[in-house]
Amino acid sequence: MSAQITINEVGPRDGLQSQSRILSVEDRLQLIDSLETAGIRRIEVGSFASPKAVPAMAGTDRLLKQLDGDGREARTPRTARASRTTYTSMVPNLKGYRFARQAGAGSVTAIAYASETMAQRNVRMTLAEAERAAGDILRLARDDGVEAIIIVAVAFGCPFEGDVDPRLVGDIAARYLEAGAARLVLADTIGAADPAQVGQLAAGLAGEHGAARLGCHFHDTRAMGLANVYGALEAGIRWFDSSIGGLGGCPFAPGASGNVATEDVVMMLHQMGFDTGIDLPRLLAASDLATRLTGTAPGGRAREWLRGHLDKPASVTGGRP
Amino acid sequence: MSAQITINEVGPRDGLQSQSRILSVEDRLQLIDSLETAGIRRIEVGSFASPKAVPAMAGTDRLLKQLDGDGREARTPRTARASRTTYTSMVPNLKGYRFARQAGAGSVTAIAYASETMAQRNVRMTLAEAERAAGDILRLARDDGVEAIIIVAVAFGCPFEGDVDPRLVGDIAARYLEAGAARLVLADTIGAADPAQVGQLAAGLAGEHGAARLGCHFHDTRAMGLANVYGALEAGIRWFDSSIGGLGGCPFAPGASGNVATEDVVMMLHQMGFDTGIDLPRLLAASDLATRLTGTAPGGRAREWLRGHLDKPASVTGGRP
Repeated sequence: MSAQITINEVGPRDGLQSQSRILSVEDRLQLIDSLETAGIRRIEVGSFASPKAVPAMAGTDRLLKQLDGDGREARTPRTARASRTTYTSMVPNLKGYRFARQAGAGSVTAIAYASETMAQRNVRMTLAEAERAAGDILRLARDDGVEAIIIVAVAFGCPFEGDVDPRLVGDIAARYLEAGAARLVLADTIGAADPAQVGQLAAGLAGEHGAARLGCHFHDTRAMGLANVYGALEAGIRWFDSSIGGLGGCPFAPGASGNVATEDVVMMLHQMGFDTGIDLPRLLAASDLATRLTGTAPGGRAREWLRGHLDKPASVTGGRP
Repeated sequence: MSAQITINEVGPRDGLQSQSRILSVEDRLQLIDSLETAGIRRIEVGSFASPKAVPAMAGTDRLLKQLDGDGREARTPRTARASRTTYTSMVPNLKGYRFARQAGAGSVTAIAYASETMAQRNVRMTLAEAERAAGDILRLARDDGVEAIIIVAVAFGCPFEGDVDPRLVGDIAARYLEAGAARLVLADTIGAADPAQVGQLAAGLAGEHGAARLGCHFHDTRAMGLANVYGALEAGIRWFDSSIGGLGGCPFAPGASGNVATEDVVMMLHQMGFDTGIDLPRLLAASDLATRLTGTAPGGRAREWLRGHLDKPASVTGGRP
């Protein structure tokens, strides 16, 4: 089993879009810089949703151009590392995909839904329409040579419909993976999952499609975020979405609180001997910046412990951090 | 694999002994009553440590007499259930054991140490002296027909010595189980464990001695409390120490914060289909009482979510609580 884990940092999108304070493109770039400085090599940097629906994500086109294009030269510290980082952007529909392409996106993330009601509330489409939209995006992306990640929303439970049939999630996964999705990410949008449920669903899909094309996305609403990461790890999952400082929650899903915090996930992974390529003290600096920029209380739970112990020898921390 | 879990509530001892506010015996009884009302059938009710060393536990003899003996009649609501609940008390040494017996204890919990420095700091004994003390308690208890639980402190990491050799823990476990301990509980005193480490140690011991005589005790210091419970569950462990409202931490171990909260553990267990015999709304009432009596902020993490969702149908909670 690989000891290498990919952290897909979603704070700049999933985290920021639900904050009451709207950040400037420059502030968003600064946050992305700090995440790259910590060693993160996969970042969901923004969304091409309508700026009216999601004002916090307005200007993602400019942001992407700065990251990938002309703005580079002026931003030396990040530039040196930029070639190693993959930036992805959320595209809720075909229109969003076209905007993303115009901004030069090399990777996009589209959403599939495991619940009719959630699709209607989130993007005002029926499940069938949402399926078609994601399928269309996937096809266009393939033709354009763009990486397409599919994230399956409410894969472990829906705030409107309750339990979600794992066979439905299995069907969705098979459809998109066979249609060429680079990766299929199972999202526990509202933090409803438990580790046994996660292990079972992930192991089933890994058996069918291989774990290398799967990922998981957890929220810590019911305190089971890290337990769910562990359940997924055991099933072979090696890709995890997480959000710096635990920023996040879905504005369209009642009861959804923060994403599992990147620093919590990385701490646990390192302690278990996994390699993320991430430097924890620098990650805490990024977490501080996220807190300062958004004006929110940090949601990560291991933060205080990490802060007190990272500079101390292992003998006083009771084991490895 | 059994779906029946024993929750050994340690709040009245492990939780209260580290609080700055010292509760009266009557308040402690009230808390124990509320825990029994919620359906908890195993409670660590106090400690026979020296009242000078642990002032919060003074009067445990009176408390135990009230629970088991003459005080019964006056306390009707609990009395009806008392015969079904087992109360255990911490006995740090032989003197403590004798006091416990005088108070009529039918179950005692003695401590073994997986680290020399921790033994010296916690009970001012060498590891060998502490071993001898626990062994003596075990022998006496056997002769007296008293249940003896052995808890292995710092089994997953020590604040003074760092990593703890799992073979050392294995030796300790074998010694006490062969000497007739009713149950051997692996304690992550400072919240240093990760779920992979827990799974490995617990599975090894379960293979050797059977899971039915084992238990685990976790702290949530590094946010891995529930992940560790899950790791232990997978290894067959069906006994968990936990503390109402996450009260606790070890006063002699730097960096140790709260125990894993009973409400968090029970929520996860119920969601995964395990049976604890505990009623969650009543458990939250006990948690409120613990908070009120101790004047502390509640440490449990699922509490707010539970409070908002227990009265709602499953369809809006996104699955079972």
